[in-house]
Amino acid sequence: MYDLEKVRADFPILSREVNGKPLVYLDNGASAQKPQVVIDAVTKAYAEEYSNVHRGLHYLSNLATEKYEGVRGIVARFLGAKDEDEIVFTTGTTQGINLVAYSWAMPNLQAGDEIILSVMEHHANIVPWHFLRERQGVVLKWVDVDANGDLDPQKVIDAIGPKTKLVAITQMSNVLGTVVDVKTITQAAHDKGVAVLVDGSQGSVHMPVDVEDIGADFYAITGHKLYGPSGSGAIHIRKERMDEMIPFFGGGDMIREVHKDEITYADPPMKFEAGTPGIVQQIGMGVALEYLMELGMENVAAHEKALTAYARQKLDGLNWLNVQGHSATKGGIFSFTLQGAAHAHDISTVLDKKGVAVRAGHHCAGPLMDHLGVSATCRASFGLYNTTQEVDKLVEALELCHDLFD
Amino acid sequence: MYDLEKVRADFPILSREVNGKPLVYLDNGASAQKPQVVIDAVTKAYAEEYSNVHRGLHYLSNLATEKYEGVRGIVARFLGAKDEDEIVFTTGTTQGINLVAYSWAMPNLQAGDEIILSVMEHHANIVPWHFLRERQGVVLKWVDVDANGDLDPQKVIDAIGPKTKLVAITQMSNVLGTVVDVKTITQAAHDKGVAVLVDGSQGSVHMPVDVEDIGADFYAITGHKLYGPSGSGAIHIRKERMDEMIPFFGGGDMIREVHKDEITYADPPMKFEAGTPGIVQQIGMGVALEYLMELGMENVAAHEKALTAYARQKLDGLNWLNVQGHSATKGGIFSFTLQGAAHAHDISTVLDKKGVAVRAGHHCAGPLMDHLGVSATCRASFGLYNTTQEVDKLVEALELCHDLFD
Repeated sequence: MYDLEKVRADFPILSREVNGKPLVYLDNGASAQKPQVVIDAVTKAYAEEYSNVHRGLHYLSNLATEKYEGVRGIVARFLGAKDEDEIVFTTGTTQGINLVAYSWAMPNLQAGDEIILSVMEHHANIVPWHFLRERQGVVLKWVDVDANGDLDPQKVIDAIGPKTKLVAITQMSNVLGTVVDVKTITQAAHDKGVAVLVDGSQGSVHMPVDVEDIGADFYAITGHKLYGPSGSGAIHIRKERMDEMIPFFGGGDMIREVHKDEITYADPPMKFEAGTPGIVQQIGMGVALEYLMELGMENVAAHEKALTAYARQKLDGLNWLNVQGHSATKGGIFSFTLQGAAHAHDISTVLDKKGVAVRAGHHCAGPLMDHLGVSATCRASFGLYNTTQEVDKLVEALELCHDLFD
Repeated sequence: MYDLEKVRADFPILSREVNGKPLVYLDNGASAQKPQVVIDAVTKAYAEEYSNVHRGLHYLSNLATEKYEGVRGIVARFLGAKDEDEIVFTTGTTQGINLVAYSWAMPNLQAGDEIILSVMEHHANIVPWHFLRERQGVVLKWVDVDANGDLDPQKVIDAIGPKTKLVAITQMSNVLGTVVDVKTITQAAHDKGVAVLVDGSQGSVHMPVDVEDIGADFYAITGHKLYGPSGSGAIHIRKERMDEMIPFFGGGDMIREVHKDEITYADPPMKFEAGTPGIVQQIGMGVALEYLMELGMENVAAHEKALTAYARQKLDGLNWLNVQGHSATKGGIFSFTLQGAAHAHDISTVLDKKGVAVRAGHHCAGPLMDHLGVSATCRASFGLYNTTQEVDKLVEALELCHDLFD
């Protein structure tokens, strides 16, 4: 049973006001709020149990190491990974995808090799590949979404040619809310010997994920969107791919031996983790993921599905509102513009006055904005603590915008 | 006036016990403990003021952005930088130096070009250059320290040849405590048109730093050693060098426009900061640096100088103890071995039973270990809150070790 009131009480910030109104936080796509258990874990780590990790043999170092390394198993459990050694800690999806770009793609892709992207990728899953285009002549192939914002898996599969080396695709659009059938794409790509990277930045937040079932080579997540601390994250990388990867960051921890003229590296996953890591952030992410697993991702998904259906129905009733993306798979992410003169930034400013926090801009999705023919949208994105009353407040505030700018 | 008792009261962890003994935390070289103001700032950021930064126009996003971006100016002030746009946020020195390696050195150095390193560099300032040796034929030239552990600036300067493109050098050894005259090295290197990177990971913690006075091209710091959160950090990069750098991480925030076939990048420092940053960690680092500036780095340095003198005198009195490094510049970092059979790891374990936290191992300094002819040492490293009584406890615990293992 999903006790929404109890869930909301877990998040201290939700009881605050902004601009004299109760906070209606609908910017979860950018980052989620933190439950008290996560905040407490962070506080405790600093106030009572802090030390650097690894190689220390004193009490606090052992304690911090045990807690920090314990998170690897928690991430593996959360993602359904069979082996925690396939989990590499990162600072988030951006670092995770850059790791794949520099450690796997840079040494393995030649000029003319292709990477397939959907037009609705986030810049985190575009810019690292543009680097490879600029720096070593890799070709980016784009697959469009249809009028509903759906990505046909077959169109992605059909785009795979003899030169294709990687399909890099989001599991859920951060603008349209579209959920992509990454499993079908992965299976077909693997049949053709092509690697698959899944950007799980949004997907992992809104649905149960099983990386063994999806089967992708790389699956990246971001801790701060998963109700964990900023600067936390991880990426699941299959062992076979790890074997094809050169190290990314150089520094402490990722080496076996360093001499003046030679160097040997640690085994994965440590090979890809250099220097003092985000100790406390990752401990906090572990607590966040355990919080999610305790709620049950199926329950979170069910709650959000009902909320999304309610929001769709309400927003569809506003005939002066253009919502982007109408996929049947659409999760709780609503990007929209208003008919008339109101710019997305003006709308978000008016909503803010009513306590409703939404984002305005290109949402780090330049090619999708080009595709949609807009320069910016407002985006209301829901999380596990949002309510139908908050949808109503969003609608009320939008109606005020409509009156103001009409 | 440096009120040591008051300072100690600022750090909650210092009042705890480990193994039934009061904690004597002498592992500051690995990471420092956090004052309550930092912990409170982190807690407040998550519990009351959290949001993603940049491009948000709602109240919480504006608030978080203002606090986060405010840290750039604090770092600039702490380092004496003339322009906060020369401060790039990182997750610590490891990321900072890797940024320089990938963004500046990778595109600008050719096979046969040389990088000069001292033998006492930390792996963070070695491994990224080994990558360039392995991947593009860059040559690493090493400068040894003398018997006292001093690095003669003239030897570094003399090592500069026509093929030298970079001198990468620590300001303070994390093993020997030696302080390096990085200003003299920088001036001479610049006279020869050679860039200089200073690893300020230890130096910035123990002395006032003025990057304008030093004049280096790159100066990297680590927040968690500066009494700030894990995962925080920054690097000072001169504008002229920024102009020579390609982007490192690709993702949100570091771009101007992203299309399918073309991309343009933001101006520095944003050009080098991709994706959601370590928002709360950096806010916490700002508070830590303000705490340090309030104490006054001159006062911190004076306190540590007196403490170091006391510790040197005490430890020199133990004729069965081999302390590494006897530079006149030596700061509060003491690496040592015991004559006889006791391994560094055994020593640290015994010390831990007495509540004394020290590190044992190679301290991420492989070439220096080779140079010293040891495989591991124990290291006691002091911070701004340590006391002469704690030095006495260290000595007592070492005497116990000597009795046990003799």
